[in-house]
Amino acid sequence: MRQTELFSKTRKEVPKDEVSKNAKLLIKGGFIHKEMAGVYSFLPLGLRVLNKVNALIRHEMNNVGGQEIFLTSLQSKELWEKTDRWSSEKVDNWFKTKLAGGTELGLAFTHEEPLTDLMRDYIRSFRDLPVYPYQIQTKFRNEARAKSGLMRTREFLMKDLYSFSKAQKEHDEFYEIMKGAYKAVFDAVGIGPLTYLTYAAGGSFSKYSHEFQTVCDAGEDTIHLCEKCSVAVNEEIINTQPACPVCGNKKLVSKKAVEVGNIFNLGTKFSEALSLAFVDKSNTSHPVIMGSYGIGPARLIGTVVEVFSDEKTIVWPASIAPFDVHLVALDVSDDAALKQAEEVYDLLSAEGIDVLFDDRDARAGEKFADADLIGVPVRLTVSKKTLQAKNIEVLNRRTGKTEMVANSLLAEHIKR
Amino acid sequence: MRQTELFSKTRKEVPKDEVSKNAKLLIKGGFIHKEMAGVYSFLPLGLRVLNKVNALIRHEMNNVGGQEIFLTSLQSKELWEKTDRWSSEKVDNWFKTKLAGGTELGLAFTHEEPLTDLMRDYIRSFRDLPVYPYQIQTKFRNEARAKSGLMRTREFLMKDLYSFSKAQKEHDEFYEIMKGAYKAVFDAVGIGPLTYLTYAAGGSFSKYSHEFQTVCDAGEDTIHLCEKCSVAVNEEIINTQPACPVCGNKKLVSKKAVEVGNIFNLGTKFSEALSLAFVDKSNTSHPVIMGSYGIGPARLIGTVVEVFSDEKTIVWPASIAPFDVHLVALDVSDDAALKQAEEVYDLLSAEGIDVLFDDRDARAGEKFADADLIGVPVRLTVSKKTLQAKNIEVLNRRTGKTEMVANSLLAEHIKR
Repeated sequence: MRQTELFSKTRKEVPKDEVSKNAKLLIKGGFIHKEMAGVYSFLPLGLRVLNKVNALIRHEMNNVGGQEIFLTSLQSKELWEKTDRWSSEKVDNWFKTKLAGGTELGLAFTHEEPLTDLMRDYIRSFRDLPVYPYQIQTKFRNEARAKSGLMRTREFLMKDLYSFSKAQKEHDEFYEIMKGAYKAVFDAVGIGPLTYLTYAAGGSFSKYSHEFQTVCDAGEDTIHLCEKCSVAVNEEIINTQPACPVCGNKKLVSKKAVEVGNIFNLGTKFSEALSLAFVDKSNTSHPVIMGSYGIGPARLIGTVVEVFSDEKTIVWPASIAPFDVHLVALDVSDDAALKQAEEVYDLLSAEGIDVLFDDRDARAGEKFADADLIGVPVRLTVSKKTLQAKNIEVLNRRTGKTEMVANSLLAEHIKR
Repeated sequence: MRQTELFSKTRKEVPKDEVSKNAKLLIKGGFIHKEMAGVYSFLPLGLRVLNKVNALIRHEMNNVGGQEIFLTSLQSKELWEKTDRWSSEKVDNWFKTKLAGGTELGLAFTHEEPLTDLMRDYIRSFRDLPVYPYQIQTKFRNEARAKSGLMRTREFLMKDLYSFSKAQKEHDEFYEIMKGAYKAVFDAVGIGPLTYLTYAAGGSFSKYSHEFQTVCDAGEDTIHLCEKCSVAVNEEIINTQPACPVCGNKKLVSKKAVEVGNIFNLGTKFSEALSLAFVDKSNTSHPVIMGSYGIGPARLIGTVVEVFSDEKTIVWPASIAPFDVHLVALDVSDDAALKQAEEVYDLLSAEGIDVLFDDRDARAGEKFADADLIGVPVRLTVSKKTLQAKNIEVLNRRTGKTEMVANSLLAEHIKR
């Protein structure tokens, strides 16, 4: 894409009430726009990153047998009363609204209730189980506090998968599979080494639930890390579980962290309340055993920005960068230099490499500052100088290393 | 995909309050689930169709220079007061909600206001124009009446593109380009020949706006067709415009129709109210000239079902079918017959053909009835009989024609 055609531009100013580093950088880079506290729109660059994150998540969910669906935001009161999650004493972050006739509706902050109810149409027998529907869909949460940019918002996409199993063993096996799938997602977006399986409060159906926490100074949570086992205990249960649940190590290290995912055993809480049952081989009815598994793609983006940027520049992991390459053309008022840049753009595009082409007539300093802020991990520079030398400057922004690469070898070099 | 793994199943019963043919068939086929009147979730088959429709729309929007974004549902009152569209006297289909602190918010029924406001950050000069942001995003509309299935809902995806231009001529040229892009979308989803450019009330900035209306008995609108010009006049303006606006023909034919798209000249209504201006070459400021262009992908699906089905079966256009091919295996209790079916499934999948493989142990009648309802346009049948004959039965459901094709020629035949 030509940068002269991209409608967003980098900005120097951000809204005065914006305090988080991730939102500031993403607003300055033209990735997102702040509508109000905790509510952000995605601009073309931001949507490219979001779509890449979603695609990586989908890949892993499909891999474990997930079937994608798309539920609604509008929710009927009756359904949520059955599980006692309608009243604001029980759930304090509902957004509620009304039909023209006065009937109260809710905006889903999660989807256990509607999905459990829906599955009653499709689960009757043990033959119908297990199944793993999931969605990437908007959640609304009426957060009292929304100061962490994309890491805690009032309206956000969430990937939520729900497992429906006929036996505890089947459930437990899938729960372990999902731990692996989540690890694969965090590895794929580049935060794997900083992300820890974290033991959290379990509820009625298991001793623990599990969070995935990414170590990050801007995190709202505190985790207690076992450096031997690479697992952690969350703040909520540290008093009852002061040692590593795996090896018993009592020397845990406290760190600030962001919860980038969580997985829960729901047991039969929802299936009993909403009458989702199956019959076994001997025609005896049992409530379905459930689990839920959440990742917030935009929170993941916020976390990536927090950990892979300084105060001025982002460096995207290649897997979720808005483009593969940022081609910066200098001296564009020189016909031969511009022609060279156009040729490089055409060549790379023809090779299937996704290029942001800075074809603007602007100063080199401005172009480099913008490239730093937009954060594409590979920056190419072409100019009168490189034209004479018949090679191109390739900057790997992750390593900071610059190489001169002959034009003829460029596509091959970048694909490597 | 194996049908034994697909969690949805065809159903005989639909909710008692469901009256529309499109929703009845889509619920029976396992495409959608009714949450409440006018609110439908998408199941795996329905989401496949929706994603294909969205991809066709995106293709055409990108083709005319559209840049995809993703705005938010939550809207601040202050913004909409500036255009006088906040009060329920002016807009009667708002869903409104409140922040925990009591601040009123709206759920977007359209996005002129937030996008116009957002573009103030990016449009300053004539050099920044024209631009064409668009999104495929959820709209909420508090419809008093919601009885037409997917054709009129309270929560739905909408593709909305907005044009921002610096001169009337530039705007007018793009408006004509969008007519072509819309025609291409309706052609691509298979309803092109039934869809008419329809003249509608224009507002302050042009004599007409334009709707795209698909002739359909279940339509809520009435249009008045000029059969010579293949354009129509909508009911709203037929008294002031009783003849064809193109040729003056007064013998217009009345038909029921569904509005599948619309395009509007917005002029400077929003840019003036929200102070979106640009400076020209002589540094004089002007309000930006705007247009808006909407298509509801789910309404499009509802319309396709209305026109390409009878009371019992759907026949999807190949371009938006949930799968390319429905492979129905009979005699699956016979090892050799099952092996044959598995081989065909593997062969077609390896060729990149998207197959729904009915590997269930069920009666032939049930399988064929399900295939009719799910509506994949090509049905293959393999059985003990076809095993002996070394060929496969191929039914083109659009033409009703059945052919016997040798195994070795199958992939080639289907791709044709």
